[in-house]
Amino acid sequence: MEPQLNQEVIKTAAAHDGPIETDAVIVGAGPVGLFQVFELGLLEIKAHVIDSLGYPGGQCVELYPDKPIYDIPAVPVCTGQELTDNLLKQIEPFGATFHFGQEVTEVRPQDDGRFYVETSRGTRFLTRTIFIAAGVGAFQPRTLKVDGLEKFEGSQVFYRVKNPADFAGKNLVIVGGGDSALDWTLQFAQEGPNRAESVILLHRRDGFKAAPASVAKMHELCDAHEMQFSVGQVTGYEEKDGKLTGVKVTGSDGVTRLMPLDVLLVFFGLSPKLGPIAQWGLDIERKQLKVDTEKFSTNVPGIFAVGDINTYPGKKKLILSGFHECALAAFAAAPFIFPEKKIHLQYTTTSPKLHKVLGVETPVFD
Amino acid sequence: MEPQLNQEVIKTAAAHDGPIETDAVIVGAGPVGLFQVFELGLLEIKAHVIDSLGYPGGQCVELYPDKPIYDIPAVPVCTGQELTDNLLKQIEPFGATFHFGQEVTEVRPQDDGRFYVETSRGTRFLTRTIFIAAGVGAFQPRTLKVDGLEKFEGSQVFYRVKNPADFAGKNLVIVGGGDSALDWTLQFAQEGPNRAESVILLHRRDGFKAAPASVAKMHELCDAHEMQFSVGQVTGYEEKDGKLTGVKVTGSDGVTRLMPLDVLLVFFGLSPKLGPIAQWGLDIERKQLKVDTEKFSTNVPGIFAVGDINTYPGKKKLILSGFHECALAAFAAAPFIFPEKKIHLQYTTTSPKLHKVLGVETPVFD
Repeated sequence: MEPQLNQEVIKTAAAHDGPIETDAVIVGAGPVGLFQVFELGLLEIKAHVIDSLGYPGGQCVELYPDKPIYDIPAVPVCTGQELTDNLLKQIEPFGATFHFGQEVTEVRPQDDGRFYVETSRGTRFLTRTIFIAAGVGAFQPRTLKVDGLEKFEGSQVFYRVKNPADFAGKNLVIVGGGDSALDWTLQFAQEGPNRAESVILLHRRDGFKAAPASVAKMHELCDAHEMQFSVGQVTGYEEKDGKLTGVKVTGSDGVTRLMPLDVLLVFFGLSPKLGPIAQWGLDIERKQLKVDTEKFSTNVPGIFAVGDINTYPGKKKLILSGFHECALAAFAAAPFIFPEKKIHLQYTTTSPKLHKVLGVETPVFD
Repeated sequence: MEPQLNQEVIKTAAAHDGPIETDAVIVGAGPVGLFQVFELGLLEIKAHVIDSLGYPGGQCVELYPDKPIYDIPAVPVCTGQELTDNLLKQIEPFGATFHFGQEVTEVRPQDDGRFYVETSRGTRFLTRTIFIAAGVGAFQPRTLKVDGLEKFEGSQVFYRVKNPADFAGKNLVIVGGGDSALDWTLQFAQEGPNRAESVILLHRRDGFKAAPASVAKMHELCDAHEMQFSVGQVTGYEEKDGKLTGVKVTGSDGVTRLMPLDVLLVFFGLSPKLGPIAQWGLDIERKQLKVDTEKFSTNVPGIFAVGDINTYPGKKKLILSGFHECALAAFAAAPFIFPEKKIHLQYTTTSPKLHKVLGVETPVFD
């Protein structure tokens, strides 16, 4: 399964005039980012969560949604998707706000001790604390590596579809063999409001990762001459007057042919990139953020790093380690938000206060 | 519910002529001790687990078996018993050997780098590594605080019943209001092979923590003159020729009466004690073992401490922190057991080797 980022399952918070003022921003909605919501919630700290993907779960859902995981403590086996669903259920009481389909592009300390945070979609925050739970980095579409092609990105070359109507009536070449490539091929090749003038699906081999039903349907459309399927790889392009006019496709026979087009859609899946985090002035060691093991704080007080993105002596990139890091980071963050309050560790089994926060009844025992 | 330690749900390994030779001994079968089995198991290290209680689960089962826990990551809610059951299921593939109903009394480093370990029941080990996951300490029966009474312990005063037949035909005074006190009262007061000559149940108030059905049955037996129930507290005793002849019981009316007996059985529940661990030469700070956060090693190489019993900067006594500590301690222990082998972190989602250790199939994905 290849998740359907391109079909825009993207939610965002309502547009705000000014920045959103909050106590905590969590960068990353993977398992560790989600559990950070929980640990902050127990301390009555509300959080906003930002993720580059269009859905929660991070690499667990992006890379292995259906594969069993065996080392979540007290969960003998679960898939990445089940793990995510359980965590979402666990954090329900805390009403975090999610900002999907965007990555943090800017983090700037303010004079009042807070941080200004801005995302690629223009969502802005003023926050007292930041928790970077960005795992292996923000998931970005893998690009087609052909020199010079990048200058057409956003005008004639696209790695995701935001508004399908933009491509209606055009001559399309769609590249890829996963669900995204096939789903969009079917949408644009078939009768409907977004039907293209012509569709060529291009894939490096005659075999697909996409759902077999989609592949069968695509072959049907080819047989009915509604579209074409071609095996080959893009190795060059042609342009005229600054416009992309076609791609050069090298087939399995070694012969290169020109394929004319208006728009090139590429679906090669997503891969993680550390991205702008590298520019926030944080201590970095081999692409990981250096933290201490008492607070899981970066070198910038108020900015914590938890999960696969951090490093410290003994670090193992295990989800269960991320969970522990979330707990200690939450306690370490509390003084930034409640400078006057003394924070005591309470237990969810026995604390009436935590029961209130969790929205559960305090059981009566003799 | 008050767990039934006294009813001897005690398993032990078969008697051995020499000490058991092993790679790892885990002291404590609470959630963290159980998960230590898992983390060692992934590295192909087999473990023996010792616990003072007669069953796995530690304080989770001893103190709150039925109370909901909300902060186990990805488990929105579970009881202490469910948590334990899930962990037991998770460690099943690793075939750990459990030694219940005994505490470690001695730990002695050997010349060959191993440790000699002995328990209160005489079980002996030679092990390369020790993982102390003893939580708040070994659970011991709470004693009756009456000066001088301790000299009858084991002859006429008992805090647990090992062999019920020892008390058949005797005049018994049973003290307590929980399930253990009521269950033994019913057993000794009713027709059967272990019936006592007489039974008096003594409790400080006319109200019980024990199961209502047991309490009702006890009242029935009193109405039928098969036993007596009395409200009061033991405040003294009488002896003759070195034998305990009776206890002085002060009632709610403030009057003290003599209650003659052959045997006094006291069931006040269990409370944890650090016990002999304090004498093993480990660095201790406020009853906790000092560890580093890279290996969770004590000051003695080869002896690790995980869970509530350890301390380090930032330490929170959370089960989820214990799980993380187990993982790092297991990796740190591997060189003691496999000095030649380089240990790499592998993932349970993808590693065929771990799938083999876990006894599961490696899924085939495109």
